[in-house]
Amino acid sequence: MHLTDIAALAEPTGEKILLLVLDGLGGLPLATGGLTELETARTPNMDALLASGDAGLHVPVAVGVTPGSGPGHLSLFGYDPLEYRVGRGALSALGIEFPLQPGDVAVRGNLCTVDQRGVLTDRRAGRIPTEEALPVLELLDAIEVSGAQTFVRPVKEHRFLLVLRPGEATEARVEDTDPGVTGVLPLEAVAVSPASEPAARIARDWLAQVPDALAGQTRANMVLLRGFATLPDWPRFPEVFRMRSVAIAAYPMYRGVARLVGMDAVAVEDDPAALIPALQERVEDYDFFFLHVKGTDKAGEDGDFERKVDIIERVDELLPALSEAAGITLITGDHSTPARMAGHSWHPVPFLLHGGPGRGHRNEGTAGFGESECARGSLGTIRGCELMPLAAARAGRLGKFGA
Amino acid sequence: MHLTDIAALAEPTGEKILLLVLDGLGGLPLATGGLTELETARTPNMDALLASGDAGLHVPVAVGVTPGSGPGHLSLFGYDPLEYRVGRGALSALGIEFPLQPGDVAVRGNLCTVDQRGVLTDRRAGRIPTEEALPVLELLDAIEVSGAQTFVRPVKEHRFLLVLRPGEATEARVEDTDPGVTGVLPLEAVAVSPASEPAARIARDWLAQVPDALAGQTRANMVLLRGFATLPDWPRFPEVFRMRSVAIAAYPMYRGVARLVGMDAVAVEDDPAALIPALQERVEDYDFFFLHVKGTDKAGEDGDFERKVDIIERVDELLPALSEAAGITLITGDHSTPARMAGHSWHPVPFLLHGGPGRGHRNEGTAGFGESECARGSLGTIRGCELMPLAAARAGRLGKFGA
Repeated sequence: MHLTDIAALAEPTGEKILLLVLDGLGGLPLATGGLTELETARTPNMDALLASGDAGLHVPVAVGVTPGSGPGHLSLFGYDPLEYRVGRGALSALGIEFPLQPGDVAVRGNLCTVDQRGVLTDRRAGRIPTEEALPVLELLDAIEVSGAQTFVRPVKEHRFLLVLRPGEATEARVEDTDPGVTGVLPLEAVAVSPASEPAARIARDWLAQVPDALAGQTRANMVLLRGFATLPDWPRFPEVFRMRSVAIAAYPMYRGVARLVGMDAVAVEDDPAALIPALQERVEDYDFFFLHVKGTDKAGEDGDFERKVDIIERVDELLPALSEAAGITLITGDHSTPARMAGHSWHPVPFLLHGGPGRGHRNEGTAGFGESECARGSLGTIRGCELMPLAAARAGRLGKFGA
Repeated sequence: MHLTDIAALAEPTGEKILLLVLDGLGGLPLATGGLTELETARTPNMDALLASGDAGLHVPVAVGVTPGSGPGHLSLFGYDPLEYRVGRGALSALGIEFPLQPGDVAVRGNLCTVDQRGVLTDRRAGRIPTEEALPVLELLDAIEVSGAQTFVRPVKEHRFLLVLRPGEATEARVEDTDPGVTGVLPLEAVAVSPASEPAARIARDWLAQVPDALAGQTRANMVLLRGFATLPDWPRFPEVFRMRSVAIAAYPMYRGVARLVGMDAVAVEDDPAALIPALQERVEDYDFFFLHVKGTDKAGEDGDFERKVDIIERVDELLPALSEAAGITLITGDHSTPARMAGHSWHPVPFLLHGGPGRGHRNEGTAGFGESECARGSLGTIRGCELMPLAAARAGRLGKFGA
């Protein structure tokens, strides 16, 4: 169902909704026949919600597809990530919380090394450490282009963000200047469409000044640009679902994706306990709360099964103080990060949905929150972007379709 | 899968199919851990069909979406309700079984009250009772517009149907004349597209005569028009599935939706037992039988759990006499109407599919027909519009896709 269809059904009154995302929640057993991280964790509070709630699995992007963090969260917000695509430059800007404006063109940059003839010898400038990259990036940020503003911001090591703020309307269909191999010259910034010519011209003017600006540098003496992208002009979440909406997250990437769809965003310390006061202070001001826990994903990425279990148990202890804020609680992940795989995976993600007085639920049996139980859940296996309509329905916030 | 794809695979021979719709069949337990209406009902005949059949849940429109009766049934007939949308005026015509013709424009009308200046004082004419509205609507039906026919038919209280039968081709993209508030003049009937100008002109000519026609009335002295719609030009069910098809239903709305997709339709008394002779008389003449039971939905809407259980049990007693008419029996609802919610809901709907000699089934276990069993059924949770292809396949009526 398209967001326009949802917007047509959405009603402005009903229960408040809490979306608690344990990043990378889905997991795998370490050995055949064993339990996943979530199944291993002792989660009496989640189990209690499930006992009077509904469960299922969700597929964040598409069957077999391993999601990145951006698409994984867009899906949870109801935006089909196959339809709503964010350019890499824009994702990079979100990741460092650069305040992109409509009309801006965001670009991923790499510091690189070229020889006297300008031929690429290292596409990542020897993976220059962030501290060493910072003064180099300040030199780049000082470059001025006529008729436009430009901004350079550090990301990590050789990676940076370049933002072009043109004085005129432009599209961002500009080819990468990274040739992908060494031994050749960097490519030109070429517009793929006539409407992208302003962005390409600014990029070329800016690039032309880089060799002089970095003349004194030994290894980081040139840059490569990739992923030119504008801020997408999408339906806004608070208007689609008719809820005053806020994201509470420690990491800028997740606040950035939330802001991208029009939510407010609040930064907290990287500790699940910090979510409680941040939520409690805002209960009256919002109808929708997206809370983000990063630790589960980091533990999964590190291949640390036990730590992932511990963090799930920690969040479970905090759950009563969180779930009391809203009538509807939706607990899930943006993708699976099985410790066994030490990375994101394509596996469907367990979810539980609880609340909605008088709206009831079907009997899920008595076992606790976990992948195998969710695979037998009354809500089946659905797409990630179907979770928000489900939560909204349960909150009494979606009207009838047709007569 | 689109209907054109189904039509390309459909074969004219195979088993007959009986679609038995218990309106609003899906339900909820009254309390956590309890049983739904269907799970509570003693249904030995349905359980026996399930024991050698397959089960699952279906989502009539989309996850989280509460269907109206029109979209719910279109879905059961294989028409994706997100793709096949019926305008409100056309639904209104179906609901009173007005014989809409291709080219007709159907409009929802409200009797309303205006003051001497024509300013709206009551958008529903004090919810005038139907008996009082009837003579007023006869005055409206007598209005004549040059170059077109117009028909006014009562619906209920202040609501009526206006049908414009233009002498020329027209679209129906005409704006509502209902301003949605009192204290202002009714709006003009304005065409949104040039191709809708004929419909708008007829509506304006008709509206211009209403004040004189209703000059003697005290409260119902003007009308508001909404939901201009034409009869959609869709693929016809009997041709898509290559089955001679008949609807047997007590309520005009359901016969209307069936006629909309090209089925024949037969009216019966509002008693499930009346379905048996109506079906038996027609067994030789048709390949597809849609039987509609309204009582389950009405009991659900009334919040009457016990009555819904009773009606399900009543239908179960009649089932052997019904299911013997066709090789394939599909039993389901068009949506859920949990008594606990006293209204339509978004919850997935249980279905059972039985029959097809030699076509076999997978093991469902031994428990009876109900939501929790169906959530674990071998056919999974599918979209409502996928049920008809499934039934047709089981009937041996769908050929192989590709070589």
